[in-house]
Amino acid sequence: MKCGVFGTGTVGRVIGSRLAELGHEVTIGTRDVDTLLARTEPDTMGNEPFVSWRGMHPKIGIGTFAEAAAAGELLVNATNGAGSLEALHAAGEENVDNKILIDIANPLDFSGGMPPSLFVSNTDSLGEQIQRAFPTVRVVKALNTMNAFLMADPSLLAGGEHSVFVSGNDGQAKARVTEILRSFGWKDVIDLGDITTARGTEMYLPLWLRLWGALGNGTFNISVAR
Amino acid sequence: MKCGVFGTGTVGRVIGSRLAELGHEVTIGTRDVDTLLARTEPDTMGNEPFVSWRGMHPKIGIGTFAEAAAAGELLVNATNGAGSLEALHAAGEENVDNKILIDIANPLDFSGGMPPSLFVSNTDSLGEQIQRAFPTVRVVKALNTMNAFLMADPSLLAGGEHSVFVSGNDGQAKARVTEILRSFGWKDVIDLGDITTARGTEMYLPLWLRLWGALGNGTFNISVAR
Repeated sequence: MKCGVFGTGTVGRVIGSRLAELGHEVTIGTRDVDTLLARTEPDTMGNEPFVSWRGMHPKIGIGTFAEAAAAGELLVNATNGAGSLEALHAAGEENVDNKILIDIANPLDFSGGMPPSLFVSNTDSLGEQIQRAFPTVRVVKALNTMNAFLMADPSLLAGGEHSVFVSGNDGQAKARVTEILRSFGWKDVIDLGDITTARGTEMYLPLWLRLWGALGNGTFNISVAR
Repeated sequence: MKCGVFGTGTVGRVIGSRLAELGHEVTIGTRDVDTLLARTEPDTMGNEPFVSWRGMHPKIGIGTFAEAAAAGELLVNATNGAGSLEALHAAGEENVDNKILIDIANPLDFSGGMPPSLFVSNTDSLGEQIQRAFPTVRVVKALNTMNAFLMADPSLLAGGEHSVFVSGNDGQAKARVTEILRSFGWKDVIDLGDITTARGTEMYLPLWLRLWGALGNGTFNISVAR
């Protein structure tokens, strides 16, 4: 199917190329295409310049947030949490209306240094903020609890025997996202409930960050034994 | 060894009886012993009256927080999070000084209904609040990420193949607590780092609560695949 992926960082690239590899038609959206393609230095996270990456993935389209949203039947929010609402507003309500949005972003607040804390938590979540701002969008929070490479290919770790969560108000949308997750290789997809349960997966991030520190790399994930 | 366990709810009872079963000399501490022993109705969580429970565990001592603290070489905070600092102050600085304290409490805030949120998070934690209030106490946050029965006997689930975390500033104290956890049956004990990493395990609680809701029972835990 046609997918619009917002965000050109690691998550957007890895999810975009995984979707393309699985036969989907992918357009990656960004704020300013010309600026992005003009960059020849690694980004602040150390990623190779987007233009070099795209050279390896010639089938993947690139456009503004609005163009990617208009092109996609299924949308993926892979922007950083602090910029997610702005990116979705730039995408335009008419382009996101009624579509499924897989929200991978986490509300990380780096203003106090590393590890980041969360800029929304406890009684609200970024997933809920997005759902409230775009009431017709079928938001499904998912994949925000592991690193990008595992999101796209869980078989890279422990034979894929670990867990991923979905949260959202629309059962059909969660079922569709679950199918996509299964196509990525996810075996254990746990439906936590409505979009308020995104508080649970977003608030797991502080534990993820300490595990990352303690284990020394990001190739780990939790499996829910039950 | 001599253990003082603060709290007479499920966690205090289960941890206390497990320690006693393993040969330790246990004193459970409470605010007001006479009131506790006079109760003949189940408590607000549905636990049988303490006096009936204690009839089944005659070797376990009961005393005030101060008496349990004075009696214990190793201390366990199994009070509810909202009452933990008060309980420790009642225990008395002279009785807790320099001792290891396993802090199991979570900063749950039930004021907004179920599921609870956290009354401290992001840039602080209950574990850190306790450490700051009692600088000489060797606080080790542990066991706050699963239900009481699994805390005390992880073999009840998945052959014990799941994870528990320790956070604390004192490496020797963490090593001693790790030994105790291993005596309970824990195989995978992950040292997250200093007491600030308690933010990670405490902030996992909102995910635990949603998993509890989704799975319909508390007999589950996370295993860190890596």
